Amino acid sequence: MGNPAGPQPTSYPALDIPERILLGPGPSMVHPRVLQAMSTPLVGHLDPKFIEIMDRIQGLLRYAFQTGNPLTIPVSGTGSAAMEAAIANMVEPGDSVLVCINGYFGLRLAEMARRYGADVLTITRPWGEVFTVAEVQQAMQAHPPKVVAIVQAETSTGAQQPLDEIARVVHARSAILIVDAVTSLGGVPVRVDEVGIDVCYSGTQKCLGCPPGLGPITVGPRAEEILSTRSRPVANWYLDLTIVQKYWGKERTYHHTAPISSNFALYEGLRIVAEEGLEARWARHRRNAERLWTGLEALDLTLHIPLSHRLPTLTTVRVPEGVDEAQVRRALLEDFNIEIAGGLGELKGKVWRIGLMGHSSTPENVDLLLNALDRILHSP
Amino acid sequence: MGNPAGPQPTSYPALDIPERILLGPGPSMVHPRVLQAMSTPLVGHLDPKFIEIMDRIQGLLRYAFQTGNPLTIPVSGTGSAAMEAAIANMVEPGDSVLVCINGYFGLRLAEMARRYGADVLTITRPWGEVFTVAEVQQAMQAHPPKVVAIVQAETSTGAQQPLDEIARVVHARSAILIVDAVTSLGGVPVRVDEVGIDVCYSGTQKCLGCPPGLGPITVGPRAEEILSTRSRPVANWYLDLTIVQKYWGKERTYHHTAPISSNFALYEGLRIVAEEGLEARWARHRRNAERLWTGLEALDLTLHIPLSHRLPTLTTVRVPEGVDEAQVRRALLEDFNIEIAGGLGELKGKVWRIGLMGHSSTPENVDLLLNALDRILHSP
Repeated sequence: MGNPAGPQPTSYPALDIPERILLGPGPSMVHPRVLQAMSTPLVGHLDPKFIEIMDRIQGLLRYAFQTGNPLTIPVSGTGSAAMEAAIANMVEPGDSVLVCINGYFGLRLAEMARRYGADVLTITRPWGEVFTVAEVQQAMQAHPPKVVAIVQAETSTGAQQPLDEIARVVHARSAILIVDAVTSLGGVPVRVDEVGIDVCYSGTQKCLGCPPGLGPITVGPRAEEILSTRSRPVANWYLDLTIVQKYWGKERTYHHTAPISSNFALYEGLRIVAEEGLEARWARHRRNAERLWTGLEALDLTLHIPLSHRLPTLTTVRVPEGVDEAQVRRALLEDFNIEIAGGLGELKGKVWRIGLMGHSSTPENVDLLLNALDRILHSP
Repeated sequence: MGNPAGPQPTSYPALDIPERILLGPGPSMVHPRVLQAMSTPLVGHLDPKFIEIMDRIQGLLRYAFQTGNPLTIPVSGTGSAAMEAAIANMVEPGDSVLVCINGYFGLRLAEMARRYGADVLTITRPWGEVFTVAEVQQAMQAHPPKVVAIVQAETSTGAQQPLDEIARVVHARSAILIVDAVTSLGGVPVRVDEVGIDVCYSGTQKCLGCPPGLGPITVGPRAEEILSTRSRPVANWYLDLTIVQKYWGKERTYHHTAPISSNFALYEGLRIVAEEGLEARWARHRRNAERLWTGLEALDLTLHIPLSHRLPTLTTVRVPEGVDEAQVRRALLEDFNIEIAGGLGELKGKVWRIGLMGHSSTPENVDLLLNALDRILHSP
């Protein structure tokens, strides 16, 4: 065996995780039933029982996405991996891609498209605003794209992008529409088939109430056509849906080992979504968000996004003049065990980001936060 | 809210997972302490406590890999993602890459390198054999590569590749060595610094005794130099170590949301590795493998790999003439709750693959399997 192993570490204490109320942009709190599913002893990833669970997950994901798309699966990575799967599979070098940028995740879509060799055209809006259909139409006329990518729920700003009309103009010019639904799926309506979204992806750690680690994605018929007629292999092997779909499909061809426990958890999380029902779940997210908004305004705080396109799942609040925003977050975490987040990019230092997603979206959590903020901001 | 949601699914039963004895090529059984860690309520991925856990994981991974490399992290995907991270970060289009292929995972390394635009040269050996240093040296003379990639523990064959001398000839020609340690890390010696492996990766679901979902990787100084002097960005955004290392490093720059629960589990799994000690752990894997080999030979079965380069963590057994190999596996699963696997590629239908990895590697599991095989193969 050669030389002995290097020094055996001795100073690693037991896992000592504080209980937190997670009201940031994700991960949100995980339902106890989902946590229990995570601790289920494993079976093999080709075990008949796991294959049955894979099928059930696909069925439930179709419900969550409101789609009949056969190619609807959780990618074996986080929401960022699902975003990359969308780009990597739809884009070949030289393809024209229009990316709508009004926040951090639009920027990332453009960055990824460039890495896959796309000819990237961007339109931009200040962080927090949304795009009109005319803006998208005009950009498409100037430079007809194969793919249009847009974020439905910008986690960096709290803005919700209307999609119905945009989908129509994208299809009218024979392009396909990729939609980022990371902070919307399971919390606000994402109607893939009705709207005509061609590729839609999300993460598990936001409104689905599961731990991070999987990235649900659905691929519609127009996009499947693009996938099956690519002129060269997908540049990304791990996220190549032409082979991943044979693992999740009837062939069950080995590609990689699915994260078994995370899939158990996703199954349980999606069962909870189905039990509650999407309509009721959307209404709950809306109701608790309104309670939060009213409460924040009662504390003399200003919401960054106008009501007309404000996301119920992620609220941005302007940091009042003269307040140290990081200090407030630290006090929330240390004195009240509540996590919220600061701003990103253009909004860094200017806003707080408060998430009410999945199992975190309760009136109790809203009241705890409002009470804590009141004490921190208004104590002498 | 527009139209109501599509039909609410009603026919999804509670998670109903049978208890299995996992003796296939992975996932292996997960230690109860690790399962419990998986069910710990989450904290945010930028929570000071999670950042502390990230640091502790890095320290313990360095012990597991036997390295001092600062860039030692779990990639947020399975072992296949870690393999892709190794290739994507080290390879630029046009780079010359030598891949040694003597099984399924060598083939995959070559496929990935091609997708990243490498000029791929391969040397091959029948599945189950290993490479001599002279073979590697000769191939390098004919066509000097920037990168040499080789599999230490071929999960598809059960062969263990000696590495020390190969590392020397690779470095003598100023190339770097990528080593696949998916089925070895934590089960057989992987001495990254002593051997001089430049990039080494693994998975969590084999000898580390955790669920699948993370891919540990370590990058040495020569490889870090290549990474920091690339002429173009890494083609794969999600696995781009130039940015991922800023998330795991002092900067803590947001890149993606780490799979929190899987990291809790990995931390607990690595603590167990440290408590047992690598030397003792390697000895346990060896001892239980020898018990298995002796028992299989006593059942008149033939081991596919000669003792000189036989892996203790994954044993391939030849299927006897006239035996339906799939039927035997089915009987093991259905009548004894034991999972083993069939062959892949060149060995499909010809061998069974038996894993004794991590928490699965116990004398009790060996005896249960031997007894079950005896009953299935030799009952009238």
